[in-house]
Amino acid sequence: MSPASRLLVDIHTHVYLPRYAAFLRSRAAVPRIFTRTSPEGRQEERLLILDDEPSSGRPIGAQYWDRDEKLKFMDLHGIDVSVVSSANPWLDFLPAPTAHKLAGELNDDLETYCSTGPALTPSLKRLYGFGLLPLVPEASTESLVSTVEQIATLPHLKGVIMGTRGLGKGLDDDALEPVWAAIEKAGLVVFLHPHYGVDKHAWGEKENGHVLPLALGFPFETTIATTRLILSGVFDRYPNLRLLLAHSGGALPQLSSRLASCIDHDPLVASRLAHDARYYLGKLYFDAVAYGSEELGFVSDAIGRADLYARAGTSAAASGAKGADGGEKRRVGSGRMLFGTDHPFFPPLGAQEKWKSVVENLEAIDGVWGWTEAEKDAVRGGNAISLFSLGS
Amino acid sequence: MSPASRLLVDIHTHVYLPRYAAFLRSRAAVPRIFTRTSPEGRQEERLLILDDEPSSGRPIGAQYWDRDEKLKFMDLHGIDVSVVSSANPWLDFLPAPTAHKLAGELNDDLETYCSTGPALTPSLKRLYGFGLLPLVPEASTESLVSTVEQIATLPHLKGVIMGTRGLGKGLDDDALEPVWAAIEKAGLVVFLHPHYGVDKHAWGEKENGHVLPLALGFPFETTIATTRLILSGVFDRYPNLRLLLAHSGGALPQLSSRLASCIDHDPLVASRLAHDARYYLGKLYFDAVAYGSEELGFVSDAIGRADLYARAGTSAAASGAKGADGGEKRRVGSGRMLFGTDHPFFPPLGAQEKWKSVVENLEAIDGVWGWTEAEKDAVRGGNAISLFSLGS
Repeated sequence: MSPASRLLVDIHTHVYLPRYAAFLRSRAAVPRIFTRTSPEGRQEERLLILDDEPSSGRPIGAQYWDRDEKLKFMDLHGIDVSVVSSANPWLDFLPAPTAHKLAGELNDDLETYCSTGPALTPSLKRLYGFGLLPLVPEASTESLVSTVEQIATLPHLKGVIMGTRGLGKGLDDDALEPVWAAIEKAGLVVFLHPHYGVDKHAWGEKENGHVLPLALGFPFETTIATTRLILSGVFDRYPNLRLLLAHSGGALPQLSSRLASCIDHDPLVASRLAHDARYYLGKLYFDAVAYGSEELGFVSDAIGRADLYARAGTSAAASGAKGADGGEKRRVGSGRMLFGTDHPFFPPLGAQEKWKSVVENLEAIDGVWGWTEAEKDAVRGGNAISLFSLGS
Repeated sequence: MSPASRLLVDIHTHVYLPRYAAFLRSRAAVPRIFTRTSPEGRQEERLLILDDEPSSGRPIGAQYWDRDEKLKFMDLHGIDVSVVSSANPWLDFLPAPTAHKLAGELNDDLETYCSTGPALTPSLKRLYGFGLLPLVPEASTESLVSTVEQIATLPHLKGVIMGTRGLGKGLDDDALEPVWAAIEKAGLVVFLHPHYGVDKHAWGEKENGHVLPLALGFPFETTIATTRLILSGVFDRYPNLRLLLAHSGGALPQLSSRLASCIDHDPLVASRLAHDARYYLGKLYFDAVAYGSEELGFVSDAIGRADLYARAGTSAAASGAKGADGGEKRRVGSGRMLFGTDHPFFPPLGAQEKWKSVVENLEAIDGVWGWTEAEKDAVRGGNAISLFSLGS
């Protein structure tokens, strides 16, 4: 095991728990797992997960549900601790009573998955988790809040993973106010993760496989959902709500100053918010799943400058003034960024031992201009230990 | 006038030429200009430009069509030269014969607008322009190519402004190949500009004015269109095609390493491309209309690293290797970034003399960490002088 200050912690790593996989096998509509005869004549299971996915889906196997496979993957890449979450689309497609019951069962399953797994020290396990809420149309406030409370009683669950649809109207729905309040009160972290992308007509008619919905649609969805949360004032009303954004916040950092400018030119919207839009990025957490050093460095810039934008309508000069030490903002911002792998997605195509997607994200952290080894260690693990209070 | 090396050149500045404004006044459907009685009892003209815009649109006046107003705006902000373009939605909404005729007329009008305007020196005018192509469904190749050739004969038109719909199927449409070839041959610059955003259902039900479609939808559209062009191989087939992206490329820089990773995991798409996705960003040009120093610095990083990704499937370590001088890449990348204002949009709300949107973009350039005065001068004007061969 690495020294505590040098742990590698993966906060973006998914599982389809056996109960969930069995449920997907029982379905005739997407999302579903089905068996087919492969072109080589073998029986194989395939997963259809996205709307309008090419009809053969993707191969699925033990790496999606078997804890031993997760641990093997962790060992192969030197990952000490994983904070595991159910993969999309979670329970979104279910009627409210089914979603409520299954959420409770899957939360208990995930607690067992973690608690009966290996430990690094008497106080630090190798597996922790994000629970599930029955966020579907018609879900009652009582169902949602009671599930938050269930998760809060499960010692290895440290947060909830959440898509962007909420009860069908998105996360800026007033009906979710008691849910934010309950999550904030319980001290759980919300892991915001995309599933739907944007309308498929945007991708045109050319055959580009999954590239456009995954590379662009996923990050756009996260960006839209987070922006709508900012505009709805959720972060003003729940200042202690901790939200972790998948894929380094998508496009939010790069569009945040444009967002601030657009708000600034719209008095009705501007008057609702306590701060400049850029300020809220400093209250969020971002995974470091962006595949490039320049991207990660920039995300840390966008976080690190946030406190300079506490006042609504602040000018860009507040941050970019001549002579300001960009390196200091960049180092500060790294404190809200956390390593992740997106396992078991993006598996290697060839016979490489380590997964290219994982190696790239580790190389990206290592190569950020302006981060010292202390910042890199924090992004690789220290920030996760703090955010989730692991081992304490 | 400033010394030649210190000119301020605005390459993102729009006009509705009088002929176009008259045309919009004649229409009953969006886009249109209509007259109403204001809440204060005055007669006022309003512009409805976006699909699903709040029904009162936005105030419109002489700043949208009067050249003297453009020059006054330039003088107020110290802008020496403007490369003016028609504003969205261009001719997208017209039948092909009407679009062809109007494009030709508007190109002649814009040439006159520039050529009869003031000059800084005998060889350098204050106004240049981007022409229009009749890019609408049913447009013939002959109509498009002949309009490219018309623009190439007009000495003050240095490029074409273009939306993302092409002939209705987007810009990755094979039918546009002769158009790219003609534009490349003529040495014109394509200014790629959004109009449609993404499907409005993404914005939810809350009242957020224009904020979401403008702050997010516009940049998403540019990102999607440029990515589809990359995936279609247009930049491999037309290596001398010069494309200038509005709003600093939207989200393309921040999603470019994710894009490269997604392509890398999809052999069918990967096999079509000569280079890693990140390489193509080094062949593009980006306006500096991003409203923040950190954004601009990052865009220059993404451009400056591009040549390290010439080989398809390059690892992130190529760029982010420990000890690499991030500052050098950042300085190199600034050579493809160009100041812009988006005038006459984002006018000041109050009685300020200078426009906040313009001041912010100038402050943003001034505050980029790692750019010397030489890079800042180039972004403010020198790069535009070179790209458009102005004054030579």
